[in-house]
Amino acid sequence: MRWCRFEEDGRAVHGIVEGDRVVAVEGDPFNGHAPTGRVHRLSGIRLLPPVVPPTFYAVGLNYARHIREAADRKGVPADLPTQPDVGYRANNALIGHGADIVIPEGATRVHYEGEVVAVIGRTARNVSEAEALDHVLGYTIGNDVSERNWQRSDRTFWRAKNADTFKPMGPWIDTEARLDRMETIVRRNGEETIRFRTDDMIFGVATFISTMSRYLTLHPGDVIWMGTDGSSPDLQAGDEVEIEITGIGTLRNRLVGAS
Amino acid sequence: MRWCRFEEDGRAVHGIVEGDRVVAVEGDPFNGHAPTGRVHRLSGIRLLPPVVPPTFYAVGLNYARHIREAADRKGVPADLPTQPDVGYRANNALIGHGADIVIPEGATRVHYEGEVVAVIGRTARNVSEAEALDHVLGYTIGNDVSERNWQRSDRTFWRAKNADTFKPMGPWIDTEARLDRMETIVRRNGEETIRFRTDDMIFGVATFISTMSRYLTLHPGDVIWMGTDGSSPDLQAGDEVEIEITGIGTLRNRLVGAS
Repeated sequence: MRWCRFEEDGRAVHGIVEGDRVVAVEGDPFNGHAPTGRVHRLSGIRLLPPVVPPTFYAVGLNYARHIREAADRKGVPADLPTQPDVGYRANNALIGHGADIVIPEGATRVHYEGEVVAVIGRTARNVSEAEALDHVLGYTIGNDVSERNWQRSDRTFWRAKNADTFKPMGPWIDTEARLDRMETIVRRNGEETIRFRTDDMIFGVATFISTMSRYLTLHPGDVIWMGTDGSSPDLQAGDEVEIEITGIGTLRNRLVGAS
Repeated sequence: MRWCRFEEDGRAVHGIVEGDRVVAVEGDPFNGHAPTGRVHRLSGIRLLPPVVPPTFYAVGLNYARHIREAADRKGVPADLPTQPDVGYRANNALIGHGADIVIPEGATRVHYEGEVVAVIGRTARNVSEAEALDHVLGYTIGNDVSERNWQRSDRTFWRAKNADTFKPMGPWIDTEARLDRMETIVRRNGEETIRFRTDDMIFGVATFISTMSRYLTLHPGDVIWMGTDGSSPDLQAGDEVEIEITGIGTLRNRLVGAS
């Protein structure tokens, strides 16, 4: 099943994607829902981020090649994580599939990061690795847009990673996608720039959920962005970035300059 | 006016504190509200965090003495921030006034951090310092509970600062409190351990809001925890921590061991 969220008469509603149609529901995928009978063409609606998380988790460094390439650029040794320490992103930055990424004034090194996103479906506290994936509703796609100069100069990631529009997420949550069969493919202006096996992670989704849940409660709607592999060219206004993940779909967003 | 949030028949509702009574409202302080006629004794209700923020901002380092004392303990030079870089905390960790702070298994150096919290009332984007405080609904109190060993060992603050129950906030939002008249007083088991002028900040509330709003939109209900001064003794199960801020009130929470 594919869960989306979209604008209907100025209101955000959840919907179920069936081929090229979307069936609007009352309620949401987490707390119960009922069909409304209202059906839209998928091509005729504006998709929103499929969920606005109570807490927005993001794994910063989780693919060896991404860490090694960043270390090489700085001329320092690669420092691979030895334990699953999760980080955070901010809801203000979320946009949906098709919305524009606005390059803020002063930003000069904007990069994409294509990531698979685990969406929590059921409360998780003190769960084992074996049980962890039972608490996942499904998977969606995130683009962890980053300004590399600010990422280096600032003490935190507030504007490097959390400027408005820097967190495209979508197009929907797929509840049947299988992590072990996914491949992540990123394209700039239609041309493939990177491809990697999505679950080639240093620490996997089940390990993160189980470890996190020893200290905190994961709530329905929480998202965990799982990190990215490889690197990105410097992006420009006018560029279109597509992140495809096998079994989920494609998240597409265009970059524009600040007006 | 003092805005609280509390449990009424298993539901979270907002209320207005009037002396020792609370008047329940329909709605909330951000999007409109109407009185319900239901009145409770303040001493008879369970207070919740006065708001669950869409984005939970926190200024890590904003008082010179706190930074110098931490640097001294590590034997390194103090590194004062040169620009207002805001950080983040996580909603899972929020608890209200009177709720217990649960010391997680393995935590051995748990500290308080008494902080004033600015609560955003109106959307802020590209606002000047002069306009910034017009976007603040009022102020509340936060205890940025921190486990110092994890703060040093982990790559992020996920369990050092965001373990469940590590973010007491309350007791309410005071809309008339004046930053320039506030003093922050922290007591452990009734004994004063630190006192400082609340607005003796490296970067003030207006500077943070104005700077942040150049890159991101602050939304009604967002909170900015403004950092703390001084340091804390190591806390133990059974300790009670009180944070009083002049003009707002007192946030009180007891520490208990993990069961």
